Amino acid sequence: MANDRVRKVTHIDNIKLSEDGTSIIIIDQTKLPNQVEYIELRTAQDVWDAIHLLKVRGAPAIGIAAGYAMYILAQQIKTDDYRTFYNEFHRQAEYLNSSRPTAVNLSWALKRMEKVVTGHKDLPVAEIIGLLEKECHAIHEEDIAMCRAISEYGLSLIKEGDGILTHCNAGPLATSRYGTGQGPLFLAAEKGMKIRVFADETRPLLQGARLTSYELYNAGVDVTLICDNMASLVMKNGWVQACFVGCDRVAANGDAANKIGTSGVAILARHYGIPFYVLGPTSTIDMNCKSGDDIKIELRDPDEIKEMFYEKPVALKEVKCYNPSFDVTDHELITAIITEKGICRPPYTDSLAALFK
Amino acid sequence: MANDRVRKVTHIDNIKLSEDGTSIIIIDQTKLPNQVEYIELRTAQDVWDAIHLLKVRGAPAIGIAAGYAMYILAQQIKTDDYRTFYNEFHRQAEYLNSSRPTAVNLSWALKRMEKVVTGHKDLPVAEIIGLLEKECHAIHEEDIAMCRAISEYGLSLIKEGDGILTHCNAGPLATSRYGTGQGPLFLAAEKGMKIRVFADETRPLLQGARLTSYELYNAGVDVTLICDNMASLVMKNGWVQACFVGCDRVAANGDAANKIGTSGVAILARHYGIPFYVLGPTSTIDMNCKSGDDIKIELRDPDEIKEMFYEKPVALKEVKCYNPSFDVTDHELITAIITEKGICRPPYTDSLAALFK
Repeated sequence: MANDRVRKVTHIDNIKLSEDGTSIIIIDQTKLPNQVEYIELRTAQDVWDAIHLLKVRGAPAIGIAAGYAMYILAQQIKTDDYRTFYNEFHRQAEYLNSSRPTAVNLSWALKRMEKVVTGHKDLPVAEIIGLLEKECHAIHEEDIAMCRAISEYGLSLIKEGDGILTHCNAGPLATSRYGTGQGPLFLAAEKGMKIRVFADETRPLLQGARLTSYELYNAGVDVTLICDNMASLVMKNGWVQACFVGCDRVAANGDAANKIGTSGVAILARHYGIPFYVLGPTSTIDMNCKSGDDIKIELRDPDEIKEMFYEKPVALKEVKCYNPSFDVTDHELITAIITEKGICRPPYTDSLAALFK
Repeated sequence: MANDRVRKVTHIDNIKLSEDGTSIIIIDQTKLPNQVEYIELRTAQDVWDAIHLLKVRGAPAIGIAAGYAMYILAQQIKTDDYRTFYNEFHRQAEYLNSSRPTAVNLSWALKRMEKVVTGHKDLPVAEIIGLLEKECHAIHEEDIAMCRAISEYGLSLIKEGDGILTHCNAGPLATSRYGTGQGPLFLAAEKGMKIRVFADETRPLLQGARLTSYELYNAGVDVTLICDNMASLVMKNGWVQACFVGCDRVAANGDAANKIGTSGVAILARHYGIPFYVLGPTSTIDMNCKSGDDIKIELRDPDEIKEMFYEKPVALKEVKCYNPSFDVTDHELITAIITEKGICRPPYTDSLAALFK
């Protein structure tokens, strides 16, 4: 039955190498959803700007872009001398790392590429460049496999006809192919399984409106965009059978930091008796972080609330704003945490620790 | 002590008669907060447009404007013949009533003015016009007294230093002088009592950003604007000691319809152990409405979510939206309902019925 409905889902190629392997081609995410514009990054400055200006965003996507970037930049270093090559390579990596200092995946990918260089001091520079090419593709492939695994586990938790509520964006644009928080929804589309998604617009930066609803619509998923404050009524209407969200950091006790508003969704889900699932790679689980109390919440510019996207300011200049970018969802509100290694259930102190054994 | 801090609070004169009593002067609410523009309404068409285009909005404010409108329009009917006068008066009232068909206060005020006419058939037209002048001022004065009483009762529930979370706008602009949902906050300012208010921006129409934060800032209240999805974190931070919201309709069992998102705030408040208060005049209590299930939810244009206020659309034209303008908060989540006649506590079937005895 389900097979009859399988449709060709076109994956968004959000980041790739050019055919000759000397530049990176990305979708400029800042232009979405009004324009689908592919841009070519050729220099370190191009890549730095693209990351800094959020043309490429989402932790995994930034990591993938950084991997490709170090490969194209390595080719531009015109020397056969290892020391000269390494110094320049290292300088470029440091430079890119400054584009978004708090992005863990950025420095992780840059270090991984650098390790290829430092681990092969004795090889000719040309061969090191060959290994770098393999490594950047590996970073990308591994991310696809990881997202696929998370998506498979997530999909096992829902069934044909279910309504799913999502918050913010952790889909293909932010990662590779499937995504994490929204991964199961794209996999469902690929498998021809009919679901119905309610996407929170996610103020103030509207990632749910601009990106999630765009991605899901393009994948052929039945998606309905709502304002964040409509989630309660949508749940009350009986339209939601599960909530799927991504995560930025998970503490050892299962407390999960994610986009502002996530904890509110979890509380509503609890009130209405709906399961609430957090999806993310094991790399976001920080076993050194005991609980959510240890996670610092970044505060952002009030203009994101009062001016950004708007034709005219929507509040007085003098009015104060509180603009936290994340909140922490208490582990007691989370039904399960889904990683590429499997589904963790409470008590999380045990189930998360088991992932790292 | 508190007295030392009493400051002259300048009330916003949102609706008044011109000095010669032949036109109405209102603040154009659609221009706020960027421009404070007073406009003069002289004709039935002017008033119809002002109500229809939300230049004057808020059920009580519309009622007050309609009262004044019928007085200025009555003066324009050039006849001494009662029948001719009444026919024209009735025609104008019917016309104004079509400007916002669902606004209960609009038709209520129009009927009240018309009753002055039909109740005094035997008086000369000039004397009827004199009675209409008294009646429209009475409508306004009664609203001020009612808002004041609601505000006094509401204020008795909070204390110096408290943090209050509000949703949408039921302040002076929507009513007269104090407001209902936000009334106690303005009365607190007038009495020199220090409180701290968190105003939900209230998507999609942003009444919290555009109106509530504007009004509170101007009244000298310590107000912080937040996105709707930040309320959970603000409560978790321990910054909120009470929630105050208005209401559009209250059922006999205490279920309360109000701006979309209100029910979500109530659920969060319950989760964090914070009292949740609904404020409104007894005229919004509909004893013929048994429960919230009987309240029909108005659905509005998707463009309010995707396009309104924005420089460019924030989601694909093809993406569906669900845009309900209200939700119903279950009576079990409401700590008390505050009216001009007093504070009603659960069980509401008893306490609300007692108001009408």
